Amino acid sequence: MALIHYPVADKYGGTIASAVTNLDLHDIARAAKTYGLDAFYVVTPLTDQQALVKQIVSHWCGGVAAQKNPDRKRALELIRIFDSLAAVKADILRHGSGPVHTVVTSARPSPAGISYEKMRARLTESGAFLFLFGTAWGLSQELMDRADIILDPIKGRTDYNHLSVRSAVSIIFDRLLGDDR
Amino acid sequence: MALIHYPVADKYGGTIASAVTNLDLHDIARAAKTYGLDAFYVVTPLTDQQALVKQIVSHWCGGVAAQKNPDRKRALELIRIFDSLAAVKADILRHGSGPVHTVVTSARPSPAGISYEKMRARLTESGAFLFLFGTAWGLSQELMDRADIILDPIKGRTDYNHLSVRSAVSIIFDRLLGDDR
Repeated sequence: MALIHYPVADKYGGTIASAVTNLDLHDIARAAKTYGLDAFYVVTPLTDQQALVKQIVSHWCGGVAAQKNPDRKRALELIRIFDSLAAVKADILRHGSGPVHTVVTSARPSPAGISYEKMRARLTESGAFLFLFGTAWGLSQELMDRADIILDPIKGRTDYNHLSVRSAVSIIFDRLLGDDR
Repeated sequence: MALIHYPVADKYGGTIASAVTNLDLHDIARAAKTYGLDAFYVVTPLTDQQALVKQIVSHWCGGVAAQKNPDRKRALELIRIFDSLAAVKADILRHGSGPVHTVVTSARPSPAGISYEKMRARLTESGAFLFLFGTAWGLSQELMDRADIILDPIKGRTDYNHLSVRSAVSIIFDRLLGDDR
C-alpha cells in the first residue's frame, strides 16, 4: 500500500502536498504488518518531509528503541519512502511482482466502484495490488481517474463518512484479509 | 463504548492511569459516529486529564471550529467524560437502556472468547452493550475478569497482534456493524 501526501485534495478541491503525520506511520505500519502486506510506501516529494519520515523510522528501527520495542520495529521496517507514485510502481516492478494493479478508495461512491466481496476475489489474480490512500481531503481526482480498481466506500450504520485515514486503512485490510470471513 | 485510561496495564503488567491521546478522541469519535454508536465514554479519574478532554471537545463543538468543521463536531459531541466504569454504567442505566452487558477485547486469546459472528447475533438481545477498550498495554486483568462477554482477538494474516487502539476500535465496529456482510 501507499500513503499519498501528493497529489491530494485540500478542503476546497485544490491540489496540495500534505504534511506527514507521525501517528499515520505508526498506526498504518502496525495494520500493514498485521495483515501481511509486503510494503508500506510513504509518498511525498518534499525533501524535509522525507527526512522526517527517515528520522522516525530510523529511531524505531535501530538502537535502543528497537531493542525496547521490537514489535514497533517489525511494523515500521515495512516503510519505504518515495517521491511519487511512478517511483513506487517502478520499485514494485524491480522486485518482480508486476503487473501492478492500483486500487483506490474514496468516501464518495463511484459508479465504477466494486464491492469488497469482488475485491477479495480479485486478490487471487496474478501481479501486485497497490492500494492508494490519500491524506488531507483525499486522493486527487487525477489519481482516482487513473486507478485500475475503485473500491466502494466503507459504510457503517449512518450517513457519516468521515473516518480518519488510519481507520479506513485498518478497516479495508480487515475486510479483505482479516479472519472474520 | 468506553475508552479506559484507568485501570489499564503498563508494559510490565502493573496497573496505571494512562494519559489521554488527542488523536484517540478524534479517530474514535469519527468511527463511533460512522457506526451509529449512542455514546463514546472517555474514562479517566485524573481531573487534569478530564479538563483536557473537556477543552478539546468544547473547542470542536462550539464557536468557530464547529462552524468550519461541522462534521468533526458531529463526531466529538458523542464524547462523555466519566471517572470510572461504574459511573458509565450508572449513566447508561439513567438513560433507561439497561441491563448493561460489558464486552471486552484483548490481543490475547481467551478460552471464554466468542467469535464476531456470535457477537453479531447477541447484539439483537435486549439491553445496552458497552464495549470497553484499553489504552496503554490494555485493560487491567480485573476489568477483563469482570466482563460479561469476551470477544476473540482480531487476527489478520500474520502472528503480529499489535494494532493501535484506534485501529482495533474501527475494525471491531466494522465487523459488527459495517455494511460488508
